Amino acid sequence: MKIPKEIVGVLKKETVFFLATHINPDGDAIGSALALASALESMGKKVYVYNKDRIPELYKFMPGHKRFNSSLKNAFTKAPVLVLLDCNSPERAALEQYSFRRSIVIDHHQTETAYGDVRWVVPGAAATGLMIFFLIKAMGVALTKGMATNLYTAIVVDTGTFRYSNTSSEVLITCAELIKAGADPSYIAECLYDRWEKDRFKLLVMTLNNLEIKNDVAMMHITKNMFQKTGTSSEDTENFSNFPRQIKTVKISAFFRDVGGGFWKASLRSKGNINVAKIAELYGGGGHRNAAGFKTRGSLKAVKEKFLLAAEKILRN
Amino acid sequence: MKIPKEIVGVLKKETVFFLATHINPDGDAIGSALALASALESMGKKVYVYNKDRIPELYKFMPGHKRFNSSLKNAFTKAPVLVLLDCNSPERAALEQYSFRRSIVIDHHQTETAYGDVRWVVPGAAATGLMIFFLIKAMGVALTKGMATNLYTAIVVDTGTFRYSNTSSEVLITCAELIKAGADPSYIAECLYDRWEKDRFKLLVMTLNNLEIKNDVAMMHITKNMFQKTGTSSEDTENFSNFPRQIKTVKISAFFRDVGGGFWKASLRSKGNINVAKIAELYGGGGHRNAAGFKTRGSLKAVKEKFLLAAEKILRN
Repeated sequence: MKIPKEIVGVLKKETVFFLATHINPDGDAIGSALALASALESMGKKVYVYNKDRIPELYKFMPGHKRFNSSLKNAFTKAPVLVLLDCNSPERAALEQYSFRRSIVIDHHQTETAYGDVRWVVPGAAATGLMIFFLIKAMGVALTKGMATNLYTAIVVDTGTFRYSNTSSEVLITCAELIKAGADPSYIAECLYDRWEKDRFKLLVMTLNNLEIKNDVAMMHITKNMFQKTGTSSEDTENFSNFPRQIKTVKISAFFRDVGGGFWKASLRSKGNINVAKIAELYGGGGHRNAAGFKTRGSLKAVKEKFLLAAEKILRN
Repeated sequence: MKIPKEIVGVLKKETVFFLATHINPDGDAIGSALALASALESMGKKVYVYNKDRIPELYKFMPGHKRFNSSLKNAFTKAPVLVLLDCNSPERAALEQYSFRRSIVIDHHQTETAYGDVRWVVPGAAATGLMIFFLIKAMGVALTKGMATNLYTAIVVDTGTFRYSNTSSEVLITCAELIKAGADPSYIAECLYDRWEKDRFKLLVMTLNNLEIKNDVAMMHITKNMFQKTGTSSEDTENFSNFPRQIKTVKISAFFRDVGGGFWKASLRSKGNINVAKIAELYGGGGHRNAAGFKTRGSLKAVKEKFLLAAEKILRN
C-alpha cells in the first residue's frame, strides 16, 4: 500500500492532534484510533481521542480503550489538527459544528464529501486498520504489543476474521506481522466471539425458535416480552441477523425487533448479488448491498407480510 | 518449517503411491491427501487415494474429492509406497490388516506408535496441510489453484479459520501464498460455514433448546427422536459442541448424541487450560486438550450426572 507523502509530512510536523472516529464505533474505528494515538505519542505528540458514543462492552479488551473521550471539554485548547478515522465527513463523527485549523481524513469507505485538507481514502482497503499499519511503518515507529492488538482487532472485525471477500494476501501478511509484534489471534477471537452473556445466548435461542423460512427469505423477531424475560436489550442483538444466512437456501435474512411505540427495527442480510439496501430504501432506511436496515410501524404479522412481498420482488429481479 | 531430506528423496525416487488418511476424515486430512496426490502426479507418479469412510457432504467442494476410494480393489497391484497423512498409525486409517513394502508418515498429531519407515511428525504444526505446503515447495512443484484450495481448506479447518491458538504468523504467511496461488478465502468460508441444510439448522435449534449450564459446564443432547423428526443423522451434528463455548461463563461444553443400543457419544470442548481429554480418558475415549470425545452407556440422566461430577473435578484441579 502506498502512503501519500503529505500525510506522513503533516503528522511529523504538527504537534497536537484530535483523533475522531464515527458514531457507533466498531473495532476498526476504535483500533485504528488507538493505534495511531500511541504511535503519535511515541513521537512526542499530544493526542486527544474522541468518540461521541461510548465504547461497546464487546471492545473493552482493546488496549487503551479508556482513553476515548465522549466529551469535548478541554479538547480544543491547543488548536489541534483533526484526524478523522474510518469515516470521511465531520457529520459521521458528530463534529459538524466545529471547525479545525487543519484536517486529515484516513478512511476506507466510499467517500461522501470532499472534506479534509489532506485526504487518504482507499475504498479498496479491507480496513482502516490496515492503512494505519502501513502509515505507522512509514512514520518509522516500532509497533508495540498494544498497537498490534488494536490493529489486528481492527482488521479482524472488518474481514469477519478473514471470511469476507476483502481477505487478501496483503491482509494475511499484515496480520502475520502484527502477530510477530505481539497480537494474540486466539485471545482476540475469544474476546470477540466467546464472551456471550448467558442471557444473551438465551435470547438468541428464543429468537431462533421463531425463525420462519419462506421462498428463500428467513424472518425472525424479538418482542419486548422476550427482552424482559431474558433481561436483555437491543444492544445484545448484535449479529443475530447473520445466523439464518448460514442456511444454504436462505438468500435474504430479516430480523425484526420491537423498539416500542408500535415500531419495529429490521436488520437485513443477504448473500452475493442480492441488494437488500434497495428493500431498506422503500422504508426510508439504508445500508449496503448485503447488510441494511429500516424502521417501520405495524403489527408484527402485517410488517412481516409486507416485507416478504418486497423481498420476493427483489429476488425475482 | 524444515522438511527431512529423506521424505523428499523417497517421494522423488518412488513411482507408485498409496495415500491414506484417518477414518472420519476432516478438511485437513482430505485437503492434505488431495494436494499431495496432485503434486505427485504432476511429477509423473501413479497415486491411489484412499479413505475407509466416505467424504462428508461438507467437504464436497474440495477439488478432486471424488478421487477418494473407499474400496481397496486394485489398490495394491503395483506394490505402492504407503503415505499416511494426518494420522500416524495404520489403525487410524483402518489399514492394520495390510502390509506395505515401504511406508511414510506425515502428521501433526502426537505420535501413538513408531510406525513408518520414514516419519515426519510435527506436533507443533497447526495442520498437516501446512506441512504438505512446505513439502510441495521442497519438491519444486508449482502450486495449482486446486492444490491451493485444498491446502487453504485444510489449514482453515484445523485453525478454526484462524481463531485457535495454533494461528501463528507462519500460518498466515502460508495462507497468503495460497491466496496468491488461487485459493479464495470467502468462497471457502461460505462452503464451510454458510451452506447448512434447513433440517440441520432445525436440529441445532432443537438441541440448543435443551442446553443446561451448571457450574460453568454446559450440556446438551440429541435423541434418536430428534434425528427422526428433522430427518438428520449424526453427520449433521459437526461443530454443534462449539456453540455453548461462546458463553462467557462456560468452561466445558459437552454434547451427547444417541448412537443407538443405549449408547451415547459425547463431544467435549473446553477453553484455555482445561483438559477435557482427561475426562474422555476416564471413559476410554481420547482427544486433545480442548476437544475430546468418548462413548458411554446408560440413561441420559445418569450419563449427564456422572459426566458433570467428572467435569467439576477437572475444574477444581
